[in-house]
Amino acid sequence: MHGYAHNKDDYAKRLRRIEGQVRGLARMIDDDEYCIDVLTQVSATTKALQAVALGLLDEHLKHCVSEAMSEGGEQADAKIREASDAIARLVKS
Amino acid sequence: MHGYAHNKDDYAKRLRRIEGQVRGLARMIDDDEYCIDVLTQVSATTKALQAVALGLLDEHLKHCVSEAMSEGGEQADAKIREASDAIARLVKS
Amino acid sequence: MHGYAHNKDDYAKRLRRIEGQVRGLARMIDDDEYCIDVLTQVSATTKALQAVALGLLDEHLKHCVSEAMSEGGEQADAKIREASDAIARLVKS
Amino acid sequence: MHGYAHNKDDYAKRLRRIEGQVRGLARMIDDDEYCIDVLTQVSATTKALQAVALGLLDEHLKHCVSEAMSEGGEQADAKIREASDAIARLVKS
Repeated sequence: MHGYAHNKDDYAKRLRRIEGQVRGLARMIDDDEYCIDVLTQVSATTKALQAVALGLLDEHLKHCVSEAMSEGGEQADAKIREASDAIARLVKS
Repeated sequence: MHGYAHNKDDYAKRLRRIEGQVRGLARMIDDDEYCIDVLTQVSATTKALQAVALGLLDEHLKHCVSEAMSEGGEQADAKIREASDAIARLVKS
Repeated sequence: MHGYAHNKDDYAKRLRRIEGQVRGLARMIDDDEYCIDVLTQVSATTKALQAVALGLLDEHLKHCVSEAMSEGGEQADAKIREASDAIARLVKS
Repeated sequence: MHGYAHNKDDYAKRLRRIEGQVRGLARMIDDDEYCIDVLTQVSATTKALQAVALGLLDEHLKHCVSEAMSEGGEQADAKIREASDAIARLVKS
């Protein structure tokens, strides 16, 4: 069971909406819409994706990392290293 | 005619691929894949979107802003203000 | 003459303030302040630096790139390529 | 005792270097250096600050959050909420 397990429907819904946003971007380009308007929508889509990432990370810390820590030992250290690496990738993306 | 006009097919292809990536994210969550693996894919998708934005911006400067500048006057100033605002939104997203 | 020439005092003042913020971060660590409080100040300092970057870029487009464009030719293309590269570095930093 | 306690000297050194980088930025502007060169240095400074933030966050998870979790209860939940908020600020800065 993963961190986001009890919110699967919410994440599914948000990702479907983001998929729709990306499809909307393709349509804007197909319709020759103005570059800056396309860029504004790209920024909004990126923000929505980042929000999904921050949500997943929060659940991961709350559930998976927390569980590993209560068991302690090397497993907990590995989980934190993994979470820190994921955070670094997020900050840089 | 917009900045990206002569690359429409390329952008269409990239956005279709990103749409597929987002659909893949939904599938990962549906399949209960591990949070960190989902996060890695979210970061990759965000990076792909940012690359599209940087490409569109480059074309916009090269074509639209450039054209407005060659005409000069207030129109050029307005185009640069608009581009700077779009860059700020990108940096913050 | 560079884009920021007529705002040099303003940038000097902002950078002095940011230097003070970084010195404040060192003091917080020396005083063993709470990690999360240090992180909040790091985020504020990063934001201030990004604002300086966005300001410099806006002036650069408004003055240097604009000037190169009015002269036209290869010089203008090179300036835009350079600006796009700087924007990409900003977005990724 | 905070997460970064056993690395205080390292962080002090990194922040002193960053302070020097910011002072260098002010000097570049005072010397009328080229906008794009200043921007390149701003990006490098921002990256150095982000690296400090990621380091502090990693230590915070490894020590402070870990400790709170081993004690369990509401205190652990509050620590994770706090860490998630700090991560969100980082991603957006």
